[in-house]
Amino acid sequence: MDLIHIHRADNVALSRAQLPAGSLVNWRGELLELVTDVPAMHKVAVCPIARGEAVLKYGQAIGFASADIAAGEHVHEHNMTAGAHRPDYAFCSKVPAIDYIETSARASFQGYRRANGRAGTRNFLAIVSTVNCSVTVSRAIAAHFANSGVLRDFPNVDGIVALGHDSGCGMSTCDEGYRTLMRTLHGYIGHPNFAGVLLIGLGCEAMQVNSLLRDCGLETGPLFQALTIQGSGGTRAAVQAGVDKLTEMLPSANACQREAIPASELTLAVQCGGSDAYSGMTANSALGAAADLLVRHGGTVIYSETPEIYGAEHLLTRRAVAPEVAQKLVDRIRWWEHYTEINGVALNNNPSPGNKAGGLTTIAEKSLGAQAKGGTSALQDVYLYAEQVRSKGLVFMDSPGFDPVSVTGQIASGANVVCFTTGRGSAFGSKPVPCIKLASNSALFRRMREDMDIDCGGIVDGDYSVDECGEMIFQRILAIASGEKSASERLDYGDNEFAPWRIGAVI
Amino acid sequence: MDLIHIHRADNVALSRAQLPAGSLVNWRGELLELVTDVPAMHKVAVCPIARGEAVLKYGQAIGFASADIAAGEHVHEHNMTAGAHRPDYAFCSKVPAIDYIETSARASFQGYRRANGRAGTRNFLAIVSTVNCSVTVSRAIAAHFANSGVLRDFPNVDGIVALGHDSGCGMSTCDEGYRTLMRTLHGYIGHPNFAGVLLIGLGCEAMQVNSLLRDCGLETGPLFQALTIQGSGGTRAAVQAGVDKLTEMLPSANACQREAIPASELTLAVQCGGSDAYSGMTANSALGAAADLLVRHGGTVIYSETPEIYGAEHLLTRRAVAPEVAQKLVDRIRWWEHYTEINGVALNNNPSPGNKAGGLTTIAEKSLGAQAKGGTSALQDVYLYAEQVRSKGLVFMDSPGFDPVSVTGQIASGANVVCFTTGRGSAFGSKPVPCIKLASNSALFRRMREDMDIDCGGIVDGDYSVDECGEMIFQRILAIASGEKSASERLDYGDNEFAPWRIGAVI
Ligand SMILES: [Ca+2]
Ligand SMILES: [Ca+2]
Ligand SMILES: [Ca+2]
Ligand SMILES: [Ca+2]
Ligand SMILES: [Ca+2]
Repeated sequence: MDLIHIHRADNVALSRAQLPAGSLVNWRGELLELVTDVPAMHKVAVCPIARGEAVLKYGQAIGFASADIAAGEHVHEHNMTAGAHRPDYAFCSKVPAIDYIETSARASFQGYRRANGRAGTRNFLAIVSTVNCSVTVSRAIAAHFANSGVLRDFPNVDGIVALGHDSGCGMSTCDEGYRTLMRTLHGYIGHPNFAGVLLIGLGCEAMQVNSLLRDCGLETGPLFQALTIQGSGGTRAAVQAGVDKLTEMLPSANACQREAIPASELTLAVQCGGSDAYSGMTANSALGAAADLLVRHGGTVIYSETPEIYGAEHLLTRRAVAPEVAQKLVDRIRWWEHYTEINGVALNNNPSPGNKAGGLTTIAEKSLGAQAKGGTSALQDVYLYAEQVRSKGLVFMDSPGFDPVSVTGQIASGANVVCFTTGRGSAFGSKPVPCIKLASNSALFRRMREDMDIDCGGIVDGDYSVDECGEMIFQRILAIASGEKSASERLDYGDNEFAPWRIGAVI
Repeated sequence: MDLIHIHRADNVALSRAQLPAGSLVNWRGELLELVTDVPAMHKVAVCPIARGEAVLKYGQAIGFASADIAAGEHVHEHNMTAGAHRPDYAFCSKVPAIDYIETSARASFQGYRRANGRAGTRNFLAIVSTVNCSVTVSRAIAAHFANSGVLRDFPNVDGIVALGHDSGCGMSTCDEGYRTLMRTLHGYIGHPNFAGVLLIGLGCEAMQVNSLLRDCGLETGPLFQALTIQGSGGTRAAVQAGVDKLTEMLPSANACQREAIPASELTLAVQCGGSDAYSGMTANSALGAAADLLVRHGGTVIYSETPEIYGAEHLLTRRAVAPEVAQKLVDRIRWWEHYTEINGVALNNNPSPGNKAGGLTTIAEKSLGAQAKGGTSALQDVYLYAEQVRSKGLVFMDSPGFDPVSVTGQIASGANVVCFTTGRGSAFGSKPVPCIKLASNSALFRRMREDMDIDCGGIVDGDYSVDECGEMIFQRILAIASGEKSASERLDYGDNEFAPWRIGAVI
C-alpha cells in the first residue's frame, strides 16, 4: 500500500487505511515502516521532523512539531501544535485575471424570472417568523397546506416553507445582533426562490413587523403580506388569516414558469461540514474547479465560514481586486479575534471532534483544505453576514463555520444554489434553495447513498481528475438549478435548518 | 374616572384609559387636570416631580425625573430615566418563616410516579436532538407517529415530541456554552414528564452522544435509546431505526397510570412575557400568592429571568436563607453585568417595545412588577441555568428573560408545571410541561380568549382580591397537573419552543 502525498514539499502524507505499527508502506519506491498505529486518512511523517519544525501539507505550514517526530510516526494533536499566527497579507499581490468563456458559448439554466428582474431556481411560498413566539402559528399554517392536499392543484408551486427560529426578542433593538437578524429576514423575504411571502410576528417582540418593513424599505402587496398574532386576536384567528392570505397567493405563484436564464445569474454558495482528511484534496478541490467554471461563465460564488479560513486568510488577501476589499477581509478577521476572545473561545481551535477523528489537527490545515472549495478566482468583494451580494465573480461573506448558520446567511445574501462538501456525512438541506452534497470519499458516498449527490472520492483512486469532477459538479448545478431535485430535497430537508446567526447577549 | 394608585407613597398613578390633555380625573376626592395626553395604563404624575427627584411606584424608586414634571403630566421615557444602580444587598436581613399547611390538610394531584421516584404531570415520549443537524430526522420520526394514527392504540401516551434546536455544533467543547447545553439536554432526558427518550445525533457534532452519556452518567436501556445518522447509514435508515425504537417503547409508556401524589412534588416555574403596566399588580401579584400557597404545601417554585430582577435584586438577597445563597445571586448579577458589557448591551434597558408601549419605562419598574410573581417566601437556593433543582420552597434559576429560553431552562431544572403571566398576549407552550396563561387585564383575556387560562384583570375592577385570584390559580395548577389541558396545550403549542440558551460565540 502507498501513502497519499499531496504536495512534493510535504513532510507528511496520508494513510489510505487504518494501519498498525510495524506495517510497511511504499514511499517513493522504498519501504517505510510505521512506528505507531495510524488511523485511516491520518497523517504520517515521511521523514524525521524535529520539535519546533514546520509540519508541511498542501506545501504549506499547517503547524509545528511539539515533539521530535520519527519517520513513519502518526502526526496529530499529540505531537504537533498550531503555533503562532502572524501572516503577511500582501494585499492584491496575486490577482488572477478571469478567463471568461465567450458569450455565445456560455451555459444557461431553466429558472424563474421575478418581477424585479432577479432569477430564482425554485418557486416556493414562505412564511417568515419575526420571532420564536410566532413559529408555532407559522408551522400550523404550513401544515394546513401540507395536510389538506390543496397544493396538488398548484403543481408549479414547490411548497410552502415556514422559516422558524429561536430569536427575535430577548435582544437589544439597536445592536449588531438585531441588525444581523434584520438583514437575514430581509434577505429571505426578497429571495427570488419565493413567489410570495407571509411575514408573521407576535406583536410585542423586539423585531417588530413594522420596524422591519420600514427599515428595509419593504411594502406589503398581494404577494407580500404581514400579520401579528396579537393583532389577529390569538392563535386560531392568526392561523386562519395566514391560510387565507397564502390561499390568495397560490394562483399567482402557480402561474410562474421556468424560462432560459444565463448561468451568469446563478449565485453559488460553497460550504463544507463534517470535513475529513480527504475533503481538501477531493470534494473541496473539485468544488473549487466548478466554482472557477461558474465565474468563467459570468456567475457569482459566495465563499464563507470565516473561522475556517483563519490561518490562511493571507492567501485570499493576495487575490483581492482592491486594497479596500482585502482590508474588509482583514477587518472581519479582527472582528472574529475580538468576538472569540470576549467569549473565551480559541479561534485557532476550530476542528470539531469529527474533524479530528478524521485526521485534521490544526485550523491552518483545515483552512487550507477548506479554501480549496472557493476556487482560485480573484476576490471581488467582502460582505457582512446576510448582506445582499451585488458583485459577480468570487466574493466572501462573513459567517461562522456552523453549517445551518452559515448557509442561512449565504441564502439571505442571495445564493440560489448551494454546494456542500462533506467527509463524515451531512444531514442538511436549505429550503428554498437546493443543496447539492459532494462526498469527499467513496465509502461515505456508498454508506449514505441517498443523502449524497456526487462522489468526489474517485479523485484519490485516479478514476477522474479534479477538473473532470469539477465539470461534473458544474453540470449538476445547472440541472438542479433547472428543477431536478437534489438528494436533500428528495429527503425533504430544509424545514428546520433556517438558523440566523445570533450575535450577542440573550436578555 | 379615577386613577389606579398602587402604593400610598407613590407620586405616580396609572390611567385606566387613553385620556386626552384637559381630561379631569378623580384624585383623592379632588379633580386633577391632565396636562398632556396619557395612553391607557401609563403613568401620570399625581404631584409635581422636580428634575432629579425619584419617581415612586410600588412605594419604591423606579427611576428619576429627567425634567421637571407637572402634576397631571404623562411620565415615561421622555421625562424620566433609570438612574444609577447601587443597591444595598443586606444579606438574609428579612427571611420570612414558611407558614406550612398542616400535613393532613395538604393538597395532592394525580400524577405519574416514575421508577426513580420523581413525579410527572404528563406522559410523553421524547426525541432529543444533540445538534441542529439531526432535527429533521427527529421531526420526521415524530411526524410518522402523528400521521400514522398508531398513537390511538396508546391512549395514555400524551404524544411524541421532537425537541429541536439550532445548536450542538459550531461551538467549543470545553466552555460555558457547551456545559449549559449539556445541562439542558440532560435535564430534558431525565424529565419525569417523559416515559421514554430517544436521543439522536448526526455523528460528527461538538455535542457528541457518547460524551453526553458519559459526562451525565446516563446509561441507555429499553426506555432510553440513542442513535446517530452517520452511524445508521443516512437519513432514511435513521428515521426507520428511530421509529422502531419508539414503537418498542410505546407499550411500556402506555402502561403508566396516574396516581395521587402530594402537591409538595410539584415544581412550579413562574414566568412572564409581554408584560404591561397591569402585570405587576394583577397577574404577577396573584401568581405570587399562588406560589406562596404552593410553598406552604411543601412544593417548589422556580423563579428566573435574571435581567428582569436587575435593579430589585436587593429585595431577594434580604430573603435568602443563608449568605452563600444571597452571594450566589449577587454572583449571577455580576456575571450578567459582564455578559451584557462584553456584548455591548445595557442591562438596565430591558423593557421591550411592547413593554414600553404598555407603559413600563425602566428596568427597576419592570423588575419590581416582575418580582411579584415569585411570591414572598424565603429564598432557599440559587441555581445555574438548567441545573437540577434539589430544594423545596422558592428558588432562583439564572436565565435570560426571553420566554422560550428561560422556560427551557426551568423545565430542564425540573419544573413540572409552568405559570406564565402576560399583558400583551403570549403565544407560547412548553411540551412536555403544561403552561398556564394568566392574563394581566380582562381586555386581553377577551381578545385572546382561546390562548388564555385565567383572567387576573378583575383584581383592578375589584371583582376579586389578589389572594382570591391566587387561590384560583393554585386550584387550576392542581387540576392541570392532574391532566386537564391548558389553553396552550389545546392549541398544540410546544413543538417549536425548546430553545436552549446559547452562550458565547458561534464558530
Ligand atoms: Ca430553532
Ligand atoms: Ca466546515
Ligand atoms: Ca460549515
Ligand atoms: Ca418577562
Ligand atoms: Ca420571560
